[in-house]
Amino acid sequence: MNQEQRETIYKQAKEWVLEAGATIREKINEPLEINTKSNPNDLVTTMDKNTEDFFVTRIKKNYPEHYVLSEEGYGDELESLGGTVWILDPIDGTMNFVHQKRNFAISLGIYYDGIGEIGLIYDVMNDNLYTAKRGAGAYKNNVKLENLQGEKKLEESIVSLNHFWLCENRLVDEQVMQDFVRTIRGTRTYGSAALEFSFLAEGIIDGYLTMSLSPWDIAAGIIIVNEVGGVTSTIHGDELNLLEKSSVLTCNPSLKEQIVNDYMEKGKK
Amino acid sequence: MNQEQRETIYKQAKEWVLEAGATIREKINEPLEINTKSNPNDLVTTMDKNTEDFFVTRIKKNYPEHYVLSEEGYGDELESLGGTVWILDPIDGTMNFVHQKRNFAISLGIYYDGIGEIGLIYDVMNDNLYTAKRGAGAYKNNVKLENLQGEKKLEESIVSLNHFWLCENRLVDEQVMQDFVRTIRGTRTYGSAALEFSFLAEGIIDGYLTMSLSPWDIAAGIIIVNEVGGVTSTIHGDELNLLEKSSVLTCNPSLKEQIVNDYMEKGKK
Repeated sequence: MNQEQRETIYKQAKEWVLEAGATIREKINEPLEINTKSNPNDLVTTMDKNTEDFFVTRIKKNYPEHYVLSEEGYGDELESLGGTVWILDPIDGTMNFVHQKRNFAISLGIYYDGIGEIGLIYDVMNDNLYTAKRGAGAYKNNVKLENLQGEKKLEESIVSLNHFWLCENRLVDEQVMQDFVRTIRGTRTYGSAALEFSFLAEGIIDGYLTMSLSPWDIAAGIIIVNEVGGVTSTIHGDELNLLEKSSVLTCNPSLKEQIVNDYMEKGKK
Repeated sequence: MNQEQRETIYKQAKEWVLEAGATIREKINEPLEINTKSNPNDLVTTMDKNTEDFFVTRIKKNYPEHYVLSEEGYGDELESLGGTVWILDPIDGTMNFVHQKRNFAISLGIYYDGIGEIGLIYDVMNDNLYTAKRGAGAYKNNVKLENLQGEKKLEESIVSLNHFWLCENRLVDEQVMQDFVRTIRGTRTYGSAALEFSFLAEGIIDGYLTMSLSPWDIAAGIIIVNEVGGVTSTIHGDELNLLEKSSVLTCNPSLKEQIVNDYMEKGKK
């Protein structure tokens, strides 16, 4: 993808994200049709489906040679990240969307041959757009985000994670996680991976840990966080594969080694 | 406190809250002087102190016969809630204030002979003001908040609580808390008690559990939550004493019995 192509695609993608967001805001108070997917707490609404359809239709019409990897299944089934792939979560944080009518985001990452080129996360109700192009920095509403502070101590860090990390789980010993929670300065749980990546990029949290996310939850976030010097990997420090579900750690680079070695590896089951 | 007195005090208090908030917004990007109180994570800034001083000076000048109970100690030492008492947290959510420069609030509850008459919570950076007068409903920015939905199921509830509930703790068996977390639909952690009360009043969360809060953390929230039909007590369902620290449960009324009996009492240490 050359500079000019990227710029064209970026402008187009941004326009669609803002348009889709405006539609969601217009319809936010309409009655919801809610279904559940794999379990009663895995919600999906017609708004998720309609928003995905909005993007897939436009992408396929304007860029017939591009692929779409997306949450609700209107996109393609992919076995590789070759070519240009739009990785979309039409509504990231569906539980927040349903229960709060805010604190959810449209998340769109655009990859070329597996490399993240463009990231867009739109906090719809707050009208905050986080964007990044590879090598060109990250922005919140056209204001450039600063690089993450280099020398962050774990003891002075705020880390976002859900409460299941402290319950018996298949990944990490919960006693080790108790030590982790007691070591850091504070925990937060916001309920939207895309927003949690955005908050890390802004520096208002210092890390985010999650047990199992899909490519569309993180595709845009990785690119945005990368542009402020943050790092993203599995919780064991390994590179992520954007074709499958995975545990995720994204954080200030000065925290990664300590979180991986002293907690994730130490408590590994 | 008669209707007319209450209206005068309400208008005055609201004016001061908005003025103090505007000052905080003006100074939000100035370098912070941060100290720690009881432990390294219990932060206090000059902004907490200056904001408290702003209120105490004005209250004492305009209402010399009123009392002030406040976090940073510029108020009175009280042994009863007789008369009119302004219960103030100048910056609730100081960790958010320091690390995020948002997601904190000014919290002000005004009590007469122990009865909550006026509650004001100001989400300063979002410029959202939550207000209530006893018996006259609760408002967000002058829009009346609806009564909390009556028939909420625990399985479909979002509850705010911090991660220490899942660590070994002095109050409730952590295995029982694991059951709790697995039973409810979702957990959130926002880091400001006053905002968590406000979110409950809005109905975007259904409950909030906390191990130890001071009167100023909850004085305004209790009044606001009460006006939408929410209930607030200790985690064991007992009435709160606003002269001491306490555990707190505030929630949709249909959840209280179940949370208290099936989790807090069952897991009681």
